[in-house]
Amino acid sequence: MSFQTPAPAAVSITDPADPRLDDIRDLKSADKAGRGLVFAEGPLCVERLLDSPYPVRCLVGFAHKLAPFAQRAAQEGIAVYEVSRETLAQVAGFDMHRGLVATADRVEPWSVEGVISQARTLVVMEGVGDHENIGAIFRNAAGMDVDGVLLGSGVADPLYRRSVRVSMGHVLRLPWARLAGGFTTWQRSLAQLADADFKLVSLTPHPEAVHIAQALAGAPKVALLVGAEGPGLTEHAMRATHERARIPMAPGTDSLNVATSAAIAFYERQRSLLDL
Amino acid sequence: MSFQTPAPAAVSITDPADPRLDDIRDLKSADKAGRGLVFAEGPLCVERLLDSPYPVRCLVGFAHKLAPFAQRAAQEGIAVYEVSRETLAQVAGFDMHRGLVATADRVEPWSVEGVISQARTLVVMEGVGDHENIGAIFRNAAGMDVDGVLLGSGVADPLYRRSVRVSMGHVLRLPWARLAGGFTTWQRSLAQLADADFKLVSLTPHPEAVHIAQALAGAPKVALLVGAEGPGLTEHAMRATHERARIPMAPGTDSLNVATSAAIAFYERQRSLLDL
Repeated sequence: MSFQTPAPAAVSITDPADPRLDDIRDLKSADKAGRGLVFAEGPLCVERLLDSPYPVRCLVGFAHKLAPFAQRAAQEGIAVYEVSRETLAQVAGFDMHRGLVATADRVEPWSVEGVISQARTLVVMEGVGDHENIGAIFRNAAGMDVDGVLLGSGVADPLYRRSVRVSMGHVLRLPWARLAGGFTTWQRSLAQLADADFKLVSLTPHPEAVHIAQALAGAPKVALLVGAEGPGLTEHAMRATHERARIPMAPGTDSLNVATSAAIAFYERQRSLLDL
Repeated sequence: MSFQTPAPAAVSITDPADPRLDDIRDLKSADKAGRGLVFAEGPLCVERLLDSPYPVRCLVGFAHKLAPFAQRAAQEGIAVYEVSRETLAQVAGFDMHRGLVATADRVEPWSVEGVISQARTLVVMEGVGDHENIGAIFRNAAGMDVDGVLLGSGVADPLYRRSVRVSMGHVLRLPWARLAGGFTTWQRSLAQLADADFKLVSLTPHPEAVHIAQALAGAPKVALLVGAEGPGLTEHAMRATHERARIPMAPGTDSLNVATSAAIAFYERQRSLLDL
């Protein structure tokens, strides 16, 4: 005969100074404060955090926002703190209308080899320093069947709060890892991809590059390299790839946003695998 | 014998209360204040404003930022006000590190017929209320050979300061107009496009829609309809189109950002006109 443990009710906290809420204190500068936590805001991101390899520490939110997660949190032994809108605003430092946030510890869930081993399509970033662009690249990659993300030098932290939010939580589930080496050496790591039979394709607005559709046609495994808006990929990085490909641009216009360019390349990759 | 008028030097203004700077006073809420002006910030946008049909009122900025525009402003009789970083910050209400802003009066430069008449590819928006998304759609349209933009109901003002900025000034040069009619009647305006031999294609994440590449193949003239992220196009709007098309999405992911979806459709349109 066994007894089922009832799900412990959420602990209600009314004092904004309560140390159990320290994880989410002054949330807007939480990343800068170096607490090194992962934050997920809103039901969609919180669910993706719960499904992720990151060990969840606590859930904080309004009663009705916490309710759908109560059973799972109880099963997994995650602390649940119920707060009012006012308390949450005082602790987080702004009016958090979504009313739900979860925190997790950082771990290193994937190795470069792990990301590569099961993948057919990868994206490799270089020099992308903007957290929103990083988040958007993860979102677009997840949406269009990219299997993993590799980071060269100069790429900002994908687990920053804003990246997680813009990625719609996909940065928490799509495998990613940092390639070894600094600014002028990381490109050597690309040899691992070539050895694993990936065709390495650099994305560049250069008019002499081949059309992206031609570069991707018939390649069983593809790794797409994208660089920061403005400078683009370094010559060093492009030299380490098999081909340079472009998205045709109208005369007199600027290159596209890096996440938009990446989305088009992902679309073309997906399209090249179909029999249209 | 004729004398060339020397270019009048920029007028230096040191008093933040000077009424000649009223156009750019409290710039962050300038749109809300209902002054009804068009604002362009930074050299790229200012140049596009000067090339646009909007009558430019003044240029304000740091001396070295104004210099490249001095001759043209003089030729066109545009007032030029030189300010220090401190004065500009006090007038605009924030530290404007780009150091250059131009204002223009609003006019209605294009009619619906004017937008349609010379076009081969158009985009039609419905319900896109976010100024950044509107700006990004204009930027992507300009970059990928879309000839014009039509606005159905529920689309926010493309001339808002933030739209202009995110569009990189393309909202000032790409022809656009508002279609007549309200929420349940504007769709009738789409008949004008069908009459002008456009194939009307709705973009939707619905899995039963055809692949966007199939929808666009072989169409001499195309109008792409896009709706707001989340609700998407209304059924009313989709019924007024010839075909519903989708960008394939990976299972368990959300639809793409509306400007990203539009960019992919523009790319596919451009691709369909090539002999790849």
